[in-house]
This record gives sequence, C-alpha cells and structure tokens, in this order.
Amino acid sequence: MPPARGDHEARRRDVSEAVWRVLAARGFAGLTLRAVAAEMGATTGLLTHYFPSKQALVAHALEVLDEHSDARPRPAADSAAPAGGLAMVRALLLDVLPLTERDATDNRIWVGSWDAALAAPGLAAEHAERYRRSRRRLLDHVTAAQLAGELPAGRAAEDVAATAQCFVLGLVVQALFAPEEFPPERQVALVDGFLAGLRAA
Amino acid sequence: MPPARGDHEARRRDVSEAVWRVLAARGFAGLTLRAVAAEMGATTGLLTHYFPSKQALVAHALEVLDEHSDARPRPAADSAAPAGGLAMVRALLLDVLPLTERDATDNRIWVGSWDAALAAPGLAAEHAERYRRSRRRLLDHVTAAQLAGELPAGRAAEDVAATAQCFVLGLVVQALFAPEEFPPERQVALVDGFLAGLRAA
Repeated sequence: MPPARGDHEARRRDVSEAVWRVLAARGFAGLTLRAVAAEMGATTGLLTHYFPSKQALVAHALEVLDEHSDARPRPAADSAAPAGGLAMVRALLLDVLPLTERDATDNRIWVGSWDAALAAPGLAAEHAERYRRSRRRLLDHVTAAQLAGELPAGRAAEDVAATAQCFVLGLVVQALFAPEEFPPERQVALVDGFLAGLRAA
Repeated sequence: MPPARGDHEARRRDVSEAVWRVLAARGFAGLTLRAVAAEMGATTGLLTHYFPSKQALVAHALEVLDEHSDARPRPAADSAAPAGGLAMVRALLLDVLPLTERDATDNRIWVGSWDAALAAPGLAAEHAERYRRSRRRLLDHVTAAQLAGELPAGRAAEDVAATAQCFVLGLVVQALFAPEEFPPERQVALVDGFLAGLRAA
C-alpha cells in the first residue's frame, strides 16, 4: 500500500535532508542508496521506493541543490541591495563565494555535482543554462555600470561578465581546496582587486 | 600464482587506459570496477586483483591523471617557449584551457576529480598542493613581468597570480559545460582581454 500523501511529502523531505548531509560529507562519489538509508536510519528498501536507481538519486540531489540555492536571500531580491551597476556586480560576485560555512557546504556540493553533470547530457545542459542565466544577470549590471561611467565602455560587456563569472567560480574551487590560503577576507579582497582592475582598464 | 612482473606492468597499463576511457565517458561517478572490467573485456575478479576497492581505483585514476598531465609538453619545458614574464604568463594560462579535444578530455576528468578529492582529506591536500605549485609558477612570471615593466607594480604579484589562476579554472568549467559559447578562439580572446586589463590597471 503506498503511504498517505502527507506521509509521502514528509518522508521525501527527510530523504532530501539525508541526501544533503551525505553530499556535504562524501560528495556525489559517496552518494549511494545505502549511505542515504543509513543517514536516515531507514532501510535501503524504503529508499528504493522513492528512488529506483542511483541516477534518480543524483537527479533528486541536484533538485535539492537548486531548492537550497533558491531559498537563499539573493542580492537582487534584498531591499537593502546596493544601487548602481558596479555595486551590484560586486554583490553578485560575493554572493557566489564560500564566505560562510553554509555557503562553503553549498559550494562544495555544487562543485561536486559537476562530475555527474558532465557525464549526463541533460544535467550538463541544465547546469549550462544556470550559468548562462547568472552571466546574463551580471551582464545587465556590467552594462549599467558602463552606461553610468563606473566601468570603461571600451570592452564588450559580455566579455567582462564572462571573465568575472569565471574568476569567482575558480576562486570558489581554490577556496574549497585551500581554505586557509583563501579565507573570506582574502576572497573579498581578491574580488575588490579584480573590480579595481576593471575600473582602471 | 601472481602474474610475472612484465605481465603485471603491461596489464596495469591496460587497466590505466581503460580507467581513462571510463572517466572520459562517465566521470568518477561512473568509475566502477565493473565498468573498467567491461571496458577491458576482463572480469571484475581480475580487476579486484589490482584494486581491492573503489577508493583504490579512484586513487589510481588520479595518478593516471597526473601522468597524463606530466606527459604533456609544457610551455616552460619547450625550447620555443616565449621569453619574458607576460608572454610566459599568457602561455601558462593558455596551457590550462581545453583548446584541443585531448585537453578537453583531460580537463573534464580533472574537474570530475574535484568531487572525490573534496571528500577525501588526503586527496584534497594533494590537489591543493598541485594548484599551489601552479600558482607559484605563475607568480614567478608575474613578478618578472612587473620587474620588466610589462605589468604595473602596484598590485601584489601573489594576488595577480591567484586571480589569473582562478579566472582560467572557471573558464575551463564554463568551456566544458558550454563549448559552443566558449570555443577555443573565444577562450584565447578572453585570456588576452584579461591580460590587457592587467597591463592597463
């Protein structure tokens, strides 16, 4: 007999939280039905009821990741968000970085998801689209900064936005591997140095 | 009876090549004893003789990755390498990027290795050390470029080197997910734009 709907939703939430904890500790490489079941104190059989395969579990993990990201307060949605193009570019770049422990966990899971996503064309396309959207958001504010004279207008705004996005993504990876060399204050200083370079160029 | 030494080496090479092909197609998420055995047309039992666990297989995969990287011609080792600090910085940055199909495969596997590496402190430390070495190499040439007046001396060379490394690592990731938006010529143009920004800053 299938569980009642309310039970099903609650159980799914439990599963999502267990998936999250397994990913944070062991990455996608360690994400197995058995590990999630153990994390929940449940049987593998129960897990199989929700996720018939490892692939279904990975797809769910990426949904959970999306929900976590959507649930975060974003600079653009914040009423105290900085006005102006360049300040907004800065806020968007800082928003990506692992400046808090929670952001470090989210980022660790995002970076970990790249392996599985690159192996599955559908997941790769979704990741590409996410990064395209975030590039577009940066582009809007780079363009605004150029129009306001905060950034020189000489360079294509698309290239500036892509370069800025690449820079912070790489910084995420380095900060995860060498947190002692890239503590939050150095990450912020590197972003500010990068932006100063854009202004002066 | 264990195999003769020559056999053992040859078989190990076969295994390494099979590991490489599995990683290129399916990533670390798809790296299983069964998949490698199937790729070799061998039994899982034979594989277990070389790698008693998935973790041993992952560790070997990272060694193979290192060997592949070491076997590549490097700008610094090339007698036709560009002289001068800034030209060398440019060569080192371009060397990281997936500008050829082979480099795209290597990079896909490197990026894929981050998930497993972040889950294992020993592997994470090795990765961190690799990136530290490559930052140091960049730093030497950034410093030379500053001394030669090719780059302004105002900004700490460590920060310039770290920023440049982060930028190309992020570009690798974007080029893997969206190769049509980041074809080789755009990757090179973005590097040149980035360097022009450093020069002008």
